[in-house]
Amino acid sequence: MQTVQKLFVGSIFHTLGLNKFAHLPQHLLGISPQGKVLFVSPKAKENEIYRQFDINGSTEIIDLGRKFLVPGFVDTHVHAPQYPNAGKGTHLSLIDWLNKLTFPFESKFDDLRYSKSVYEKVVSRLLRNGTTTACYFATIYPNSSKQLADIMNKQGQRGLVGKVNMNRNSPHYYIESTEESLLATEEFINYVKGLKNDTIEPVVTPRFVPTCDPELLMGLSFLAVKHKLAIQSHVAEHVDEVSWVKELEPDCVYDTLVYKKYDLLHPRTILAHAIFLTPQEKKMFEQSKAAISHCPNSNFTISAGKLDLRDLLNRGIKVGLGSDISGGYSPSLLQAQRDSITCSKALAFETQNKEKEINYQQAFYLATLGGAQALGLEHKIGNFEVGKEFDAILVDPKPPIENSSFDVFPQDSIDDIFQKWFYLGDDRNVSKLFVKGKQVL
Amino acid sequence: MQTVQKLFVGSIFHTLGLNKFAHLPQHLLGISPQGKVLFVSPKAKENEIYRQFDINGSTEIIDLGRKFLVPGFVDTHVHAPQYPNAGKGTHLSLIDWLNKLTFPFESKFDDLRYSKSVYEKVVSRLLRNGTTTACYFATIYPNSSKQLADIMNKQGQRGLVGKVNMNRNSPHYYIESTEESLLATEEFINYVKGLKNDTIEPVVTPRFVPTCDPELLMGLSFLAVKHKLAIQSHVAEHVDEVSWVKELEPDCVYDTLVYKKYDLLHPRTILAHAIFLTPQEKKMFEQSKAAISHCPNSNFTISAGKLDLRDLLNRGIKVGLGSDISGGYSPSLLQAQRDSITCSKALAFETQNKEKEINYQQAFYLATLGGAQALGLEHKIGNFEVGKEFDAILVDPKPPIENSSFDVFPQDSIDDIFQKWFYLGDDRNVSKLFVKGKQVL
Ligand SMILES: [Zn+2]
Ligand SMILES: [Zn+2]
Repeated sequence: MQTVQKLFVGSIFHTLGLNKFAHLPQHLLGISPQGKVLFVSPKAKENEIYRQFDINGSTEIIDLGRKFLVPGFVDTHVHAPQYPNAGKGTHLSLIDWLNKLTFPFESKFDDLRYSKSVYEKVVSRLLRNGTTTACYFATIYPNSSKQLADIMNKQGQRGLVGKVNMNRNSPHYYIESTEESLLATEEFINYVKGLKNDTIEPVVTPRFVPTCDPELLMGLSFLAVKHKLAIQSHVAEHVDEVSWVKELEPDCVYDTLVYKKYDLLHPRTILAHAIFLTPQEKKMFEQSKAAISHCPNSNFTISAGKLDLRDLLNRGIKVGLGSDISGGYSPSLLQAQRDSITCSKALAFETQNKEKEINYQQAFYLATLGGAQALGLEHKIGNFEVGKEFDAILVDPKPPIENSSFDVFPQDSIDDIFQKWFYLGDDRNVSKLFVKGKQVL
Repeated sequence: MQTVQKLFVGSIFHTLGLNKFAHLPQHLLGISPQGKVLFVSPKAKENEIYRQFDINGSTEIIDLGRKFLVPGFVDTHVHAPQYPNAGKGTHLSLIDWLNKLTFPFESKFDDLRYSKSVYEKVVSRLLRNGTTTACYFATIYPNSSKQLADIMNKQGQRGLVGKVNMNRNSPHYYIESTEESLLATEEFINYVKGLKNDTIEPVVTPRFVPTCDPELLMGLSFLAVKHKLAIQSHVAEHVDEVSWVKELEPDCVYDTLVYKKYDLLHPRTILAHAIFLTPQEKKMFEQSKAAISHCPNSNFTISAGKLDLRDLLNRGIKVGLGSDISGGYSPSLLQAQRDSITCSKALAFETQNKEKEINYQQAFYLATLGGAQALGLEHKIGNFEVGKEFDAILVDPKPPIENSSFDVFPQDSIDDIFQKWFYLGDDRNVSKLFVKGKQVL
């Protein structure tokens, strides 16, 4: 009989697919000492559960009361070093924003004392907002990128972390040679693997085509295959960037084709934005099973454009949500969910096609199971299916501190309260946070 | 010499117009015992100020330190009774939302005990979010509408408050006869005037054309003239509503024409939404000097559509922001400001016209001086011009409680910090709140 370490009793919300939102009221959820979900069962079948599993004196029983459990949020695209700039420079265009704000700032991360102060804050800020899994871009510096992995390890956040690669079209003070870049990347990969923490993995991270020449892209593709790693980058974010890529790689008519050409389009590739994909490129995503990180807050903030999310979902392309700090200003995946709805509605207005809209249950899927699928982690996380690792937010809709962000009224049902939290909640509602069964907040 | 009751020393942000955002660092701001702004002056000219004004031992001197002052927010459109529904029923269309959620709910407000519990919460929630002035729709019930005015009076919120009028196309349990409606409205008007609080005034409030027949509209127009009152209603919010109005009033080709026909389009008329105005209707706004309440959160939430804000601003039409609770889910005017930017960007994407975008300084104008103008209160509030009444938020970007919503870094300038608050701040940053010089929070 399997030992139950923690037993939650109460309301659970999760999704089993884009259109499979589920509220499980009055349920039991059991966690093994290894942090895996052992069972999710209606309380009415309690006796059966007590017969099948070893629930004993040392089992921690948590009655949820007014609180409820949701899967931890998955942020599929976030630039850790840019966190101090979140909310600043929102008037700049993409290229100006890179050159005036972002590159000078990232170049400071050669200083380990500085990088530590920032990385500790961003990891803790994301955790506080319920992000149990983050897919990070660090900087080109291998040592501070290792430090970011260490900080995730220490604070208990699951995720992918990438040393950034840039060997062209970058300022002289923030650029690497191809050789430096590849050597440092492999050193970084080995370091992260050496942490022996199966919730943290390195990810191959060419910044984007303009800053990575074909030689570097080929080298990175080789490293990804050699170490069986995920790949992350940016694609079709902005009209300026799309036309720049065409100039740089004139034999590739499409942005995505560059990644395909250098064998970087894999089932574990996740490319951010993808606003200006042609139908041909969408086909490449369908065929390669590569994923898209949708970052609506960023897309609005830097005035990039709006993604046709519904079209990607209809094609079965994997999509997760990303904060894209600091292109986006918000570290909150609740905000990303709300923004994904707004973005879908803006497109629905424009096309006069209501079908383009997504609802809150679908946005919630994108932030949880959708994100897990986009990062190739759906066998481990994303919902509370039996056998998955328990990454969860314990949501308190009425936090003890007087100044909560919304009011709950006696007539509100638990479904109403979920919606209020979805639209009006914030970090104050994150009562506890779990990664692989372990409480990290 | 004029006595200075309060003297603030530090950073002040306000606007003098749509494109006149001003940061006044190291300034002195003095308040009279009557709550009016006596002076706003650089600290360097301190000696002059001390010569001109009576600053004595009983003057309260407030050193702002890291904090800063901004004008209190003006919410130009909010349905007080709907507050408990904020964040709920976001999947419903406008007409369904009215019939299934809103009308049944508002009909409960005949019960004064119930209405008290809600009105106290909504006024306090708005104040907590920095809304010093609100323009409220109550319900058709005069007694609970008076109660709302009482609660504003008690909690110290400035604003306009209207008993709602509805005599057709309303459910049998929530409708008035024309006579009832007009009598109750005048009774309500006299009650609010009787409060002798010059920061609270009654506003004539036909719900919208579908629920008010010509006879009622004419009667209300008469009351507005007789008592010299502002008028509020809804216009061109939704395609369904626009075509319904055309059916009901076939001789009025345009929604706005109905208001014009019954003499309800005045310099102190404020109509919410105005998304689907024709150029002819915009001309009527220009000529009448009537104002528009822009409620982007609501417009996205109920999938109404997006306003061409820039066009209205270019025409010199007065525009303020509204939460439109509970069509909108957020009681925060910071959220309304962010949403107004998002809405303007959605239109910029669609039209490929960057000119359609507004920036954060312009959104800040809309939430402060723009709102004051829209409500006809710009001679009293909206910024810190000398002679105006002091309605202000004392913003603390680093609140004492550990869980603030954003991080401030040593390199952040005060302008950076303003932007971070603008994009990431919440009620936790409202350190103190003032209405007419009096601290209300
Ligand atoms: Zn990015
Ligand atoms: Zn309204």
